[in-house]
Amino acid sequence: LDYQHVQVPFEITLWIMLASLAKIGFHLYNKLPSVVPESCLLIFVGLIMGGIIYGLNDKSPPVMDSDIFFLYLLPPIVLDAGYFMPSRPFFENIGTILLYAVVGTIWNVFGIGFSLYGICQVKAFRLQDVSLLHNLLFGSLIAAVDPVAVLAVFEEIHVNEKLHILVFGESLLNDAVTVVLYKLFRSFCEMPTIKSVDVFAGVGKFFVVGLGGVLVGLTFGMTAAFTTRFTKDIRVIDPLFVFLYRYLSYLTAEMFHLSGIVAIIACAMGMKRYVEANISLKSHTTVKYFMKMWSSVSDTLIFIFLGVSTIGENHEWNWPYICFTVIFCLIWRALGVLVLTFFVNRFHVNTITSKDQFIIAYGGLRGAICFSLVFLLPDFHRKKLFIAATTVVILFTVFIQGMTIRPLVDLLAVKRKRESAPTVGEQIHIRFLDHLLAGIEDISGHWGQYYWKDKLEYFNSKYLQKILLREYDQPKSSIVLLYEKLERKHAIELAEAGQLGHAPSHPSLLNNDRTVITDKKLEDTLNPDVLENIQEILARNLYRIRRTGPAYNRHTLPGETEPVEHAKEILILRHKSV
Amino acid sequence: LDYQHVQVPFEITLWIMLASLAKIGFHLYNKLPSVVPESCLLIFVGLIMGGIIYGLNDKSPPVMDSDIFFLYLLPPIVLDAGYFMPSRPFFENIGTILLYAVVGTIWNVFGIGFSLYGICQVKAFRLQDVSLLHNLLFGSLIAAVDPVAVLAVFEEIHVNEKLHILVFGESLLNDAVTVVLYKLFRSFCEMPTIKSVDVFAGVGKFFVVGLGGVLVGLTFGMTAAFTTRFTKDIRVIDPLFVFLYRYLSYLTAEMFHLSGIVAIIACAMGMKRYVEANISLKSHTTVKYFMKMWSSVSDTLIFIFLGVSTIGENHEWNWPYICFTVIFCLIWRALGVLVLTFFVNRFHVNTITSKDQFIIAYGGLRGAICFSLVFLLPDFHRKKLFIAATTVVILFTVFIQGMTIRPLVDLLAVKRKRESAPTVGEQIHIRFLDHLLAGIEDISGHWGQYYWKDKLEYFNSKYLQKILLREYDQPKSSIVLLYEKLERKHAIELAEAGQLGHAPSHPSLLNNDRTVITDKKLEDTLNPDVLENIQEILARNLYRIRRTGPAYNRHTLPGETEPVEHAKEILILRHKSV
Repeated sequence: LDYQHVQVPFEITLWIMLASLAKIGFHLYNKLPSVVPESCLLIFVGLIMGGIIYGLNDKSPPVMDSDIFFLYLLPPIVLDAGYFMPSRPFFENIGTILLYAVVGTIWNVFGIGFSLYGICQVKAFRLQDVSLLHNLLFGSLIAAVDPVAVLAVFEEIHVNEKLHILVFGESLLNDAVTVVLYKLFRSFCEMPTIKSVDVFAGVGKFFVVGLGGVLVGLTFGMTAAFTTRFTKDIRVIDPLFVFLYRYLSYLTAEMFHLSGIVAIIACAMGMKRYVEANISLKSHTTVKYFMKMWSSVSDTLIFIFLGVSTIGENHEWNWPYICFTVIFCLIWRALGVLVLTFFVNRFHVNTITSKDQFIIAYGGLRGAICFSLVFLLPDFHRKKLFIAATTVVILFTVFIQGMTIRPLVDLLAVKRKRESAPTVGEQIHIRFLDHLLAGIEDISGHWGQYYWKDKLEYFNSKYLQKILLREYDQPKSSIVLLYEKLERKHAIELAEAGQLGHAPSHPSLLNNDRTVITDKKLEDTLNPDVLENIQEILARNLYRIRRTGPAYNRHTLPGETEPVEHAKEILILRHKSV
Repeated sequence: LDYQHVQVPFEITLWIMLASLAKIGFHLYNKLPSVVPESCLLIFVGLIMGGIIYGLNDKSPPVMDSDIFFLYLLPPIVLDAGYFMPSRPFFENIGTILLYAVVGTIWNVFGIGFSLYGICQVKAFRLQDVSLLHNLLFGSLIAAVDPVAVLAVFEEIHVNEKLHILVFGESLLNDAVTVVLYKLFRSFCEMPTIKSVDVFAGVGKFFVVGLGGVLVGLTFGMTAAFTTRFTKDIRVIDPLFVFLYRYLSYLTAEMFHLSGIVAIIACAMGMKRYVEANISLKSHTTVKYFMKMWSSVSDTLIFIFLGVSTIGENHEWNWPYICFTVIFCLIWRALGVLVLTFFVNRFHVNTITSKDQFIIAYGGLRGAICFSLVFLLPDFHRKKLFIAATTVVILFTVFIQGMTIRPLVDLLAVKRKRESAPTVGEQIHIRFLDHLLAGIEDISGHWGQYYWKDKLEYFNSKYLQKILLREYDQPKSSIVLLYEKLERKHAIELAEAGQLGHAPSHPSLLNNDRTVITDKKLEDTLNPDVLENIQEILARNLYRIRRTGPAYNRHTLPGETEPVEHAKEILILRHKSV
């Protein structure tokens, strides 16, 4: 037995496997996921596992490594979130989201930091050795809403799209602010004296970190789109580039101390449109599927690790500090949302209702990012207190808020997400209105979002598409694209239907099958009626002796060859049938 | 700048990225890949990169780490090879393959080892300090044909399927023999005296290592099939299990010193059938695509690293020893193939022709496995000589043999692979003959391959399918399955055709598109004819106001919902059109 040799990959594989099996386990009982959010269950599993490890070894179980979290677990989730983010509501509400993410987070950091400092002055609590800077540092890590936790809960409660994007967008974009404030306070803690220059440099950093992230992301996104122009002969590595460039954008941003989350989102949103047009349909399915799979696994692992890491002796249980942290987190967030929304509502026609405000404030869940940041703190005598407070805040928000938010949404009758996606008619009307508004804005000289959107679209079709798209010589009008999209969807539905075998037109075939396993027995058991049916089906569909099973070659995938000829065949068939 | 922090993932990502870009580069020029095999070009790129690193740093570039090779780079390639291996020709020739893999490899090991020991006795060569055991150890690592190198070359020359599977199957299955002999001789080298018990234990190990690998693989394969029964509600993690279980089978086998390659192949072949039936079509596309992508990247990285590692000061250039190694490798392989084929041909109707024998002998390429094994040798004073000899053998086989094998195949007019896959009619006849032969074997009391295949099939449908398949309550006859397969293929072709936009029935649409970019301008430029055409297409296909763009949810993929209802719609449409 040579365990040492395979230890690293073996343990990683086992962890992933266990996480996936836990996921399957929950979904086997349909009632459980509808009451308790998956994140709570996973943390619970983690707690049990941590308890077992603690009981067996009699020492604290291993803590989730911050490097592993930031380098390997977080990127897939953000990548998935950025790629599938509905871009229209995001850009429509970008102002509000930025206000919440930047001003709101700063408000929370200083609010929580100063009020906790106030608590520290109470002699009875024995906290006088915690300085203001340390409180602010703690505030900077505990204030940020966590995208992983928010996603896990908000996806299950199906609130309306605007509400979803406000909370989720904030949780993503506040990364830039958190990074800056956290690093600023941490370096202040280590400096003997703080000059006012340092404070101003900190303010300047906001813009560098945020905009730098966007720039890095867009650069990699455009490069990725450009690269996929040339992968026509080697389709198999199409999806690879999508993943590689995004991951590189994240790593590059992290390397330069910019916001990795912002970079990866900018990269995903920038590349999506061109990459989708350049890569093949199958590559695209793979990209989408793999992204979902990866983020799902990362997400599961994060919550399990969170549970495991909670167990142990890393905590200093000073209850007044911990309780006041939870209370201040709730109060300052609620106040911040109220004040900011007041200003937002003055400048918008579609105001944010008070119910929505409540859900936004209540949905400010904390998660693994705080947890990793608190472990990254330099060693000082109150670190264990901060760890304990962070753990309690995370568990409180994920368990109490996460589990009660769904009943509250029901109780308040918050506007839900429309179950059905918009129809073709609606989509056409929306596009028409966009063009109309762009025209009105242009005439009235108001440079609003429609004006900029129109300009961007013009720039895109005039310059970017020529460089980034492979088949630019055939730009297609939206109607033709829509037709093709519907045609593709139709085809895939056909395929799914065929696979599922629910086809109601030949139930006779399916019913008779129970006894028919090999070809030999087929003719004995099928009655003439069914045989005729089969013959008819075959005659209609096998219009030409089809070639099944493509020639074996490692660098190509089945079904890639001769699409043009096949297309012709199909169209001939189609014309005949009409 | 904080490079340390992101170094590991950043460098891995960059290497993969460079490898992929190199691949794209080759395929941009169509002529290059048709003359030189990709593997040669990649090694060449590696040599240049190694030279640059050597020139800049003035020290040997880093050598490919054996652990990285065996734990991370090799498994994806073997996984892909095992999954896409045509199982019929493999099992039809399993006896011949095993003979080549086991007896042939042992023959080569001892042949090369003893004759090199003979060379070492010549005083002029100054090699008298290389013992017989060391020569045999060297023989054990240099004798094995390398699956990665064989795949890379044989896939491009398209010889007939039997020839391909003979060489490729041998290269995969000889892993068990190589592992045993290599470890045996290595431990003998370190032992003071060798008892005859040790030799017998070594012989027994063959069976343990090989059959143990098969057992581990099949166990994991069956577990994987069983697990995918329960993933219905969380489709996104379907593909994960396929990869995880296979990788676990490899790691487990390696952990117990069994043959990891044999295990992963047994696992892939064992699970394939059930997993394909259990997981969704999209999951399956993802699995296939990702496997191809991964193996393609691994393969590229291996050859580039091979090139990089060649440069440096690890070599002792004793030319007589090196030259004789190359010569003996060629001679003993040729002799082995001749002798073994003589016996094989006596028991088979379909004999292996002398041309085929030549290609089998000539196709015995060595590759990265030898290279990694030679670096794993314990330090002794002639290790650098062995490294030099291995490097030369690999470069000789990959460059000289790899580049000349295609012209030789042309010159000898070796039977090629049939370009077209078998038609439905042929497939039905093949199946019919299988059943017939199984019956004949049963009557005549001869337990041949058809007899066992029939028994296995019976066991499979009677017991295994009930346990491992999700929808076992609806077993389908082969004709219905074939119909469904064709229907699916048809659908996917439709989709591809739609995407490629080569549809010849509405060229007018495509031609007019050059000027039509936004909706606004559409109606101005389209003539009434085209408009009518569009209306007709839309009327025929938009039979119901379709819903486009599925509701946003992170744990599901678009198009997963309501397949039954969609299927009904489609069938109604279909019936109307007929």
